[in-house]
Amino acid sequence: MHYPAGVRVEKKKDVYYGNRGMTLENDLNDTNNYYLIHDIAIVHKKPTPITINRVDYKSRSDAIIREARFKIPSTTDYNGIYKGKYIDFEAKETKSKTSFPLSNIHQHQIDHLRSIINHGGIAFIIVRFICFNETYYLDANDLFSFLDNNDRKSIPYSFFKEKGHLILDRYNPRVDYISVIDSLYFKEVV
Amino acid sequence: MHYPAGVRVEKKKDVYYGNRGMTLENDLNDTNNYYLIHDIAIVHKKPTPITINRVDYKSRSDAIIREARFKIPSTTDYNGIYKGKYIDFEAKETKSKTSFPLSNIHQHQIDHLRSIINHGGIAFIIVRFICFNETYYLDANDLFSFLDNNDRKSIPYSFFKEKGHLILDRYNPRVDYISVIDSLYFKEVV
Repeated sequence: MHYPAGVRVEKKKDVYYGNRGMTLENDLNDTNNYYLIHDIAIVHKKPTPITINRVDYKSRSDAIIREARFKIPSTTDYNGIYKGKYIDFEAKETKSKTSFPLSNIHQHQIDHLRSIINHGGIAFIIVRFICFNETYYLDANDLFSFLDNNDRKSIPYSFFKEKGHLILDRYNPRVDYISVIDSLYFKEVV
Repeated sequence: MHYPAGVRVEKKKDVYYGNRGMTLENDLNDTNNYYLIHDIAIVHKKPTPITINRVDYKSRSDAIIREARFKIPSTTDYNGIYKGKYIDFEAKETKSKTSFPLSNIHQHQIDHLRSIINHGGIAFIIVRFICFNETYYLDANDLFSFLDNNDRKSIPYSFFKEKGHLILDRYNPRVDYISVIDSLYFKEVV
């Protein structure tokens, strides 16, 4: 299993500094915090799933995990509520200029997104092409129309340009994916 | 900060075995798994939030967390989707025979539940009185009508009997809270 993206590790010597995907994750944390403070939507990143093997439990207030391992997530990283609707998404960065490798998303997560749609939720992925500094919202309906009609192991950049929605880079909120949801799902409200 | 309930710790010598609330948590895991398999609802327990301080990163496939601490959760433990609606809840056990101590739920979690209601979600708590082997669904609307009219630091058992909904102990699903949601929110569908 790969070291999960975006795990915050305090800096110390001889230690790996997890920073894969930090930037998009930080931007989304800021964005979700903005939505929360302004009472627009309630969306949180789920904690990284781990299996704990050993805990030093010195006192009620001082437990230190001494051995744990990362688990493969069974769901996406983000979910929450917006205008009464359940929303759910996964967010990934890629360095590729040509396509987004599907190996970045576990099969569990794909299955999870499909179930969410079937149950009436709003599901999508957010993909950032680092080289272009472009961040796309790709609705899960479009993701699945691609997956169901292709055997490719990656989604071409051109597909994002065609079917995805470019999320404009703003100061605040940084990655305003709610504006895309509004345009797709709440047109009549606007 | 207290050692969080329901953290699974593999058995080893000289180690604390987290088992506060294990039974209700296990029952809910089984229940949510039942809902998932039967495509009734998609509800997952969020991973326990931790702050990672040190990771041994020997290879891509073998990262071991060597030092981490438990964080106070900013949201509830459970959320998901049912019949297109966002649902959100916290679950706790108590050994008390007379009341449920509110110290079991962090203020963040209370605030979170209130926001969920304001945004059109279904929010509640599940409380098990271990001595009576009784598990109650208490809708967040009733929780807040109590909190907004009382200065007490605990909710009396009698309040659960009056305003809560006893969840019948079944074989499968173990804690069928969806049946309560149906009776409260989807009456017209039945």
